[in-house]
Amino acid sequence: MPSLLEQEIHSQPEVITRLLERETQNVRRIIAQLPEFDYILIAARGSSDHAATYAKYSWGTLAGHTIALAAPSLETLYHTAPRMKRALVVGISQSGQSPDIVAVLEEGKRQGRPTIAITNDPNSALAKVADHVIELHAGQERSVAATKTYTAQVAVMMLFAALWNGDQQRLDELQRVPETIAQVLQGAPDIARQAERYRYMTQCVVIGRGYNYATSFELALKLKELTYMMSTAYSSADFRHGPIATIEKGLPSILIMPNGAAYPDLLDLAKELQKKRAELIILSDNTEALALAQTPIPLPRDTPEWLTPITSIIPGQLLGLDLTIVKGLETDTPRGLHKVTLTL
Amino acid sequence: MPSLLEQEIHSQPEVITRLLERETQNVRRIIAQLPEFDYILIAARGSSDHAATYAKYSWGTLAGHTIALAAPSLETLYHTAPRMKRALVVGISQSGQSPDIVAVLEEGKRQGRPTIAITNDPNSALAKVADHVIELHAGQERSVAATKTYTAQVAVMMLFAALWNGDQQRLDELQRVPETIAQVLQGAPDIARQAERYRYMTQCVVIGRGYNYATSFELALKLKELTYMMSTAYSSADFRHGPIATIEKGLPSILIMPNGAAYPDLLDLAKELQKKRAELIILSDNTEALALAQTPIPLPRDTPEWLTPITSIIPGQLLGLDLTIVKGLETDTPRGLHKVTLTL
Repeated sequence: MPSLLEQEIHSQPEVITRLLERETQNVRRIIAQLPEFDYILIAARGSSDHAATYAKYSWGTLAGHTIALAAPSLETLYHTAPRMKRALVVGISQSGQSPDIVAVLEEGKRQGRPTIAITNDPNSALAKVADHVIELHAGQERSVAATKTYTAQVAVMMLFAALWNGDQQRLDELQRVPETIAQVLQGAPDIARQAERYRYMTQCVVIGRGYNYATSFELALKLKELTYMMSTAYSSADFRHGPIATIEKGLPSILIMPNGAAYPDLLDLAKELQKKRAELIILSDNTEALALAQTPIPLPRDTPEWLTPITSIIPGQLLGLDLTIVKGLETDTPRGLHKVTLTL
Repeated sequence: MPSLLEQEIHSQPEVITRLLERETQNVRRIIAQLPEFDYILIAARGSSDHAATYAKYSWGTLAGHTIALAAPSLETLYHTAPRMKRALVVGISQSGQSPDIVAVLEEGKRQGRPTIAITNDPNSALAKVADHVIELHAGQERSVAATKTYTAQVAVMMLFAALWNGDQQRLDELQRVPETIAQVLQGAPDIARQAERYRYMTQCVVIGRGYNYATSFELALKLKELTYMMSTAYSSADFRHGPIATIEKGLPSILIMPNGAAYPDLLDLAKELQKKRAELIILSDNTEALALAQTPIPLPRDTPEWLTPITSIIPGQLLGLDLTIVKGLETDTPRGLHKVTLTL
């Protein structure tokens, strides 16, 4: 009997298909109804915050929007109400329950701003406070580590990006994501074999940039939650501003580097890390990059870069799952965690 | 002969005194001249990005501004120009040279927005592109790890916060910071003794929240740059959303928890970590918190919370310095780093 985590990872083609079927018209309608705004304020925590980070890039490149990530403690700890004039306010939460995220949307509403909730629970507090709700339709997530709800949130961000962009080609590309996910999942047995080598890994760095900056954070979080290892995420640019000092011979370095605008910078870094004799685990669809790695994890070819955050996190989720198994840990209920985290 | 790093750490009372003397009127004049804006977009990397993170909180609580942290790769990698309508655009860079930070200000200018540069070099590219320049007056920073330029950047953020706030008491409190720093530096010999215990520490977590969320990132970065250890920064809220699973018996956990609005949440977490038998290194002015720690690092009493990011990073800088010494590493020129990092 596969674990809940494994089942949920493998359900993602179906989850994203359903989401796109049920929410495309809703997102189109919401966009048509939104009043004018000059920037977007997003409140989220944990994996949802990584989906927000993805939006910072894709809503920037495809729609020209500037994104501010909210600091919810301004409302909950400091009891202040930062001005949200001319902002669109968006809250992302799987459960829709975290009081700090709800507080940011309540403040947006109090200031008369348009609000959108993105959640798996259309009856949650977050959904109730928002003008508009986008439901993830992911079904109950029973494993503590988020997988299908994360990719569903990212898919919602992609849907907004495509519809704001207005080019039908973007939407067509997005429609093909579920079949690309299915293709990625066929690589699962290979990743299970590759994971053996990392039975005793206790720390690593995870590096991505641009659209996949978010992926590096999400993968590092999966590794922390599932395998308890110290994994730290960076953009390749920030990494050069200091943390590169931590690299030594054998240090596992996971690079997320599909072809695209961020690829050349990651390739430079991969070569530099190879010189320092780091252990390279590389997720890419470029054979030059894969050839640099001790552990190459191929990604599907010809996925447009803006869609790679879904196709590149899935091998990462599988790696997290397989490492949990080879290390003999609990896959579905990591120590010290609960499914719903209520933070103020 | 003390190392450059040690000299620069100890020069901070003088640096901040000079900065406040020379720039208070300038900041007041800039604020008076700024056109209307609805939010603030800040571009920065490395330690400067941590100063920007501090602004996200202090400019929110004291002045009600909403802050967006720029993703410079939107300009440099993706060649897009996100809309900055009604934004104030701020760039922070010690050297003023990083092309990606300059690119964000250039784009702001192209869109007719007001721009401010905060830099140690008034002749730098960043200073040249901006409408207004605030100079750090920190003198040349010769150690690769930033210390005095970081606290000077944070002091500039505090100056804006105080002047936007308008209450003379805020400015008076800020004027007292240099003498509080001098008091903190008197604790240097104690921290040097305390560092011995961590001769073989290879990883740790650093946790702060609210105003000191930035401090946790800056301290984690100092530890990475100087001691090459895997140190990861979190807010106590995000930490509960997953990374808390990584805590096991003996894991060094550095908590930055001066009295203030964030204190109760950190205290709860400290107690939880104590139950999990983590090794606690606690920076606080509260005796209850200090009593929980294997290594208590006292902070000066009665510093208003919004000013604690300067007084709490300094013991952190000293800890970084002392760990470098007890580990027998280079203090002034960490491996793989250069003083000026040019990222695109």
